Amino acid sequence: MKRKVLATALIAALPYISHAAEWGYGEENGPDHWGHFAEVCASGKNQSPVDIQNAAASDLDDLELSYHGQVVDILNNGHTLQGGVEGHNVLTIDDTEFELKQFHFHTPSENLINNQSYPLEAHFVHADQNGNLAVVAVMYEVDDKNNQVAQLSQSLPTAGETTALDQPFAVKSMLPEFDGYYRFSGSLTTPPCSEGVRWLVLNNSQHLSQEQADALHQVMGDNNRPVQDIYARQILLSQ
Amino acid sequence: MKRKVLATALIAALPYISHAAEWGYGEENGPDHWGHFAEVCASGKNQSPVDIQNAAASDLDDLELSYHGQVVDILNNGHTLQGGVEGHNVLTIDDTEFELKQFHFHTPSENLINNQSYPLEAHFVHADQNGNLAVVAVMYEVDDKNNQVAQLSQSLPTAGETTALDQPFAVKSMLPEFDGYYRFSGSLTTPPCSEGVRWLVLNNSQHLSQEQADALHQVMGDNNRPVQDIYARQILLSQ
Repeated sequence: MKRKVLATALIAALPYISHAAEWGYGEENGPDHWGHFAEVCASGKNQSPVDIQNAAASDLDDLELSYHGQVVDILNNGHTLQGGVEGHNVLTIDDTEFELKQFHFHTPSENLINNQSYPLEAHFVHADQNGNLAVVAVMYEVDDKNNQVAQLSQSLPTAGETTALDQPFAVKSMLPEFDGYYRFSGSLTTPPCSEGVRWLVLNNSQHLSQEQADALHQVMGDNNRPVQDIYARQILLSQ
Repeated sequence: MKRKVLATALIAALPYISHAAEWGYGEENGPDHWGHFAEVCASGKNQSPVDIQNAAASDLDDLELSYHGQVVDILNNGHTLQGGVEGHNVLTIDDTEFELKQFHFHTPSENLINNQSYPLEAHFVHADQNGNLAVVAVMYEVDDKNNQVAQLSQSLPTAGETTALDQPFAVKSMLPEFDGYYRFSGSLTTPPCSEGVRWLVLNNSQHLSQEQADALHQVMGDNNRPVQDIYARQILLSQ
């Protein structure tokens, strides 16, 4: 009997029992609770996303984006819609090659630019041979319909499902015309919020129609982590 | 009896028992072991010091260093020689005022510049109202005797002791002529290795004599943490 009492007391004292089993964007498992899933989400001083402000014009290397491959499918992992890619898609920066692993979307945007939010932000996630990550971010503004979003949206998967595209298309066609980029050191925007991620936010935006933005938001909901304190970081803008 | 056995087993299992009680620079308690004192020392992706390489010329704000106060004493805390200051000594950066709390020395330098080590590096440690830190670092090269180092060295304290200066002198007189600075986001270079520290390394060096460098090194020993991986950070050089 004593043992049972003790076990009950222990279980009541275990903090994780009160946490949701899976992180998300809700009341119980949203960004304010992510420190329970990975401590750096709460304690990190170099977290993403950020509000891109007071960027210093800087003599940065050109972004070498060699995207020669195809978008082949789209996955709904319950947190985001994520595009699968094939072929040679490589970002070179700091004399290091980073291979494109996937891209995914946030509605509305996670990063802000001069306090401005965008209806959609795409994150192209790259990794080098040592597992270091580099994310190229593209903002979307409401304007004309976007052909690539249209192809991805033909048959959007439900949570846990992957849809193969009838017509694969060039990864490169998703990028806006290049006109410089912002750079800062940040983190994953979802647990485990790992730091040491190179963030490269393109200065030029893509566009999509209001109907397309609404359709993507309906599937993903608000899956944007709030902006994090910049702390000691200086954001750069390539010149 | 049973209780005693259990207690012994528990104590044997406690990991900190195998660690030195205090961090340092020795075989048992040196930088490779600092993760035991604070996890971020081992896992952090934005740690200091660094080798300052491939700095991007950048349109940074001027460094506003308003040092109007005096150096009044010197403390040997067992890790470093640390100068105490009085009066108004303020760094303004990012539209924020950081008050000078102390300065201290490392022999040899902790940061490197283009892979070059210096015999001495001074760290001027500032804090803003919220406890955020900003460190102005000054390198010393061997050349003529340094008057301020001479005044500090007249009667160097032993570990745990503080020596009041016979003749306080202007904090400002310790700085070299200003000629730009490097900037990056880093950490404390000693446990707890806290991140979110603004690092501002002056481009111009100070000088001291070989005898002065030797005397300081004799008191402090090698108290330089090895350079840490730069990961996602881009180092900036003001233009």
